[in-house]
Amino acid sequence: MQKDSTLYQYGTLALLVPGLFEGTKSIDDILKHGDTGIGTGDGLDGELIVLNGHPYQVDGSGKVNKLDSNFMVPFADVHFANFKPLFELESDITPTSLEKTVLSKVNYDNIFFSFRLHGNFKKIATRSVDKQSKPYPKLVECADKQNEFSAEDKCGTLIGYYSPKLFNGPSVGGFHLHFLADDLSIGGHLLDFEVDNGTVEIQPFNKLEQDFPTGSQEFMKHDFSKDNIEAAISKSE
Amino acid sequence: MQKDSTLYQYGTLALLVPGLFEGTKSIDDILKHGDTGIGTGDGLDGELIVLNGHPYQVDGSGKVNKLDSNFMVPFADVHFANFKPLFELESDITPTSLEKTVLSKVNYDNIFFSFRLHGNFKKIATRSVDKQSKPYPKLVECADKQNEFSAEDKCGTLIGYYSPKLFNGPSVGGFHLHFLADDLSIGGHLLDFEVDNGTVEIQPFNKLEQDFPTGSQEFMKHDFSKDNIEAAISKSE
Repeated sequence: MQKDSTLYQYGTLALLVPGLFEGTKSIDDILKHGDTGIGTGDGLDGELIVLNGHPYQVDGSGKVNKLDSNFMVPFADVHFANFKPLFELESDITPTSLEKTVLSKVNYDNIFFSFRLHGNFKKIATRSVDKQSKPYPKLVECADKQNEFSAEDKCGTLIGYYSPKLFNGPSVGGFHLHFLADDLSIGGHLLDFEVDNGTVEIQPFNKLEQDFPTGSQEFMKHDFSKDNIEAAISKSE
Repeated sequence: MQKDSTLYQYGTLALLVPGLFEGTKSIDDILKHGDTGIGTGDGLDGELIVLNGHPYQVDGSGKVNKLDSNFMVPFADVHFANFKPLFELESDITPTSLEKTVLSKVNYDNIFFSFRLHGNFKKIATRSVDKQSKPYPKLVECADKQNEFSAEDKCGTLIGYYSPKLFNGPSVGGFHLHFLADDLSIGGHLLDFEVDNGTVEIQPFNKLEQDFPTGSQEFMKHDFSKDNIEAAISKSE
């Protein structure tokens, strides 16, 4: 398996829908499968961003923390970065038109690919949630309680993945993007941006390595049939 | 990655729904990822069974053929066999009750696992389709034209996979089983059986390695959004 043509996914987003938030793999073990990616922490503890092999957490208060190697993770997507430039941004682009533009320039609707944009953001808006306690609520209830952050004139990186709609359920079809400022002053799940300039880069995968938390009895025993996964994911993400 | 804890899937069943039947990987390349499995051939050319590293095709006429190494495949599931016995069969078991019994004895509803049953079948009923020509029809149209076969008192192997319902779409949720007689006199997609005796064996996976046919422009450019994948798969499989 070529290292840089594989997306490694630990857990599935579907698992978060009914509240299976317990971290079941350490970030150190996750990083064996990639140096770049996104995820969340034990108890839905913040939004994770991995850049150049360094894992960061944007916690519920908006603070950016470097992660300890034993930080536990219920869900993450990582890969070994080998991005190719796709196009230079124009300043009037919105998140939605950016996604459409990317898809119109490549032929990747049906496969997973990674998206990276480093640039200067006139405005950036993100969100993150507070760590949840057991018994965990459902994902939609957490989405209602998210904290939002914003900043102006920040250099930073948008990083994340496009998943084909065929994989709705195990993944979230479409783009899933996190942001991290170069100065670590702001980050989280992307809500909105205005951008001055930057280069959109992408990296397509021909393989998905889906790793299941088979050591988790909660996961193994859960009945997903009543969770209405797809609707819950599109509401929450 | 532990070899025997990974299910390798080439293509997806979803890809067959709109008629993307073209073989895009040789069986020889598929066998690098496993010695046991199921699949179909170029043009939906029969039902494939791989046992002990040997690939067989049950063609549309019901004949069992050993496959050449360059036989092309649009879809296959293979893995390296390391089965564990689960239970001894009783003779009055039906395919449906067999599936329920397996799921009741293990905790594997949410993960992929392989199922193997070698035994003496009082009756066995299978199906296979004729190789299709371009322009390929949709999968449901082929299901309407399948050929059915049956035999009595045959020793043989039921082999296949259980896919979690979470993966409906990329896979077919539930069991997908093929049959091959020891004397190669009958085989194909399982329709029904009566069994004298046999041992049910299973092998759970904690990883799915999903390999996409990114070299196929037909796949890359296809719009799956109107294919109603899940309904078509449950009708066809």
